[in-house]
Amino acid sequence: MHSDRLRSQIEFLLEIDKLKSILRQTLLTDGRRQENSAEHSWHLSIMALLLAEYAKDQPIDLFRVLKMLLIHDLVEIDAGDTYCYDEAGNADKAEREKQAANRIFGLLPDDQAAQFHNLWQEFELRETAEAKFAVALDRLQPLLHNYQTDGRVWRKHGINSNQVYSRNQSIEEGAPDLWKYAVQIILDCVDRGWLAK
Amino acid sequence: MHSDRLRSQIEFLLEIDKLKSILRQTLLTDGRRQENSAEHSWHLSIMALLLAEYAKDQPIDLFRVLKMLLIHDLVEIDAGDTYCYDEAGNADKAEREKQAANRIFGLLPDDQAAQFHNLWQEFELRETAEAKFAVALDRLQPLLHNYQTDGRVWRKHGINSNQVYSRNQSIEEGAPDLWKYAVQIILDCVDRGWLAK
Repeated sequence: MHSDRLRSQIEFLLEIDKLKSILRQTLLTDGRRQENSAEHSWHLSIMALLLAEYAKDQPIDLFRVLKMLLIHDLVEIDAGDTYCYDEAGNADKAEREKQAANRIFGLLPDDQAAQFHNLWQEFELRETAEAKFAVALDRLQPLLHNYQTDGRVWRKHGINSNQVYSRNQSIEEGAPDLWKYAVQIILDCVDRGWLAK
Repeated sequence: MHSDRLRSQIEFLLEIDKLKSILRQTLLTDGRRQENSAEHSWHLSIMALLLAEYAKDQPIDLFRVLKMLLIHDLVEIDAGDTYCYDEAGNADKAEREKQAANRIFGLLPDDQAAQFHNLWQEFELRETAEAKFAVALDRLQPLLHNYQTDGRVWRKHGINSNQVYSRNQSIEEGAPDLWKYAVQIILDCVDRGWLAK
């Protein structure tokens, strides 16, 4: 028979399959469906591999950035994805996600539960260079998708450019050159009428 | 204006969004739909984080394992996912994937194109400890999903236990303890009639 340790690890790995059914507001770049949080986490991880050179602090611990990005959305299995411009949803988001983290990471053996919990908190606190860079990518990716899909999701929710600036300014903290790129995208989206002024 | 380098990197990142629409034979654990290759790559990456202690060679370079797992299926954007028990499809798989690698990685700046190409080849060659462990996870995950979904995909394609043993024996090369676990699953699936003898 196998150890309780392996059994807990496998149970966790089966549980997190549910992240593939958590839908985000963001559309795939072809506009055909909403993105789910598992494939989103994968996409951010590849972004980190490719864009590490733009992280504000160099050298960045890219391995830790990857670990944070891979697990940062797991709490959504219980807490759901909260649209970033949903004020009511964001009011109790922290509490819902805290409870989710306790349950989901709690499925793991203690050492790994603590490791995942710490990585998740590091991401949420946005204090370390690695967390700031990871958060910057988490903001940039939906911006790229909105740009590719003519701002359809922004238009649907009546989002304006001030909201987008304010939401995405944290890109600057983690990756200033990517923020310059993001600003160009936002300006172009306003020009094209995909984003209200 | 931004550099050609950043433009190439972003172009690549938009291109690989297509991996989210490449469907595998594997079902999600709830059986409701097929898994796509992007979310599969994410799932394997978390498996690597949690199961590194079972890798045959210790210590394993887990950072490189993650990089391989994140990119190992990108070639499917052009080559499609080939079902592992499809003999005709597997006959020309290597050639199709080689061409895909040239085109897709070729979108990147030269240094990053070479880096991704090397990681992909390392995975495919299965010679290093890291590649063997990564491949072991790539085999184990669909086995877990088949187990969770009563072997529905095996039954649909009339797969028998010899095929499953032969396909998955590479788990042993990368993670012997996980192979022991896999063998128990296979035996139980035969007992339950989810897998032909």
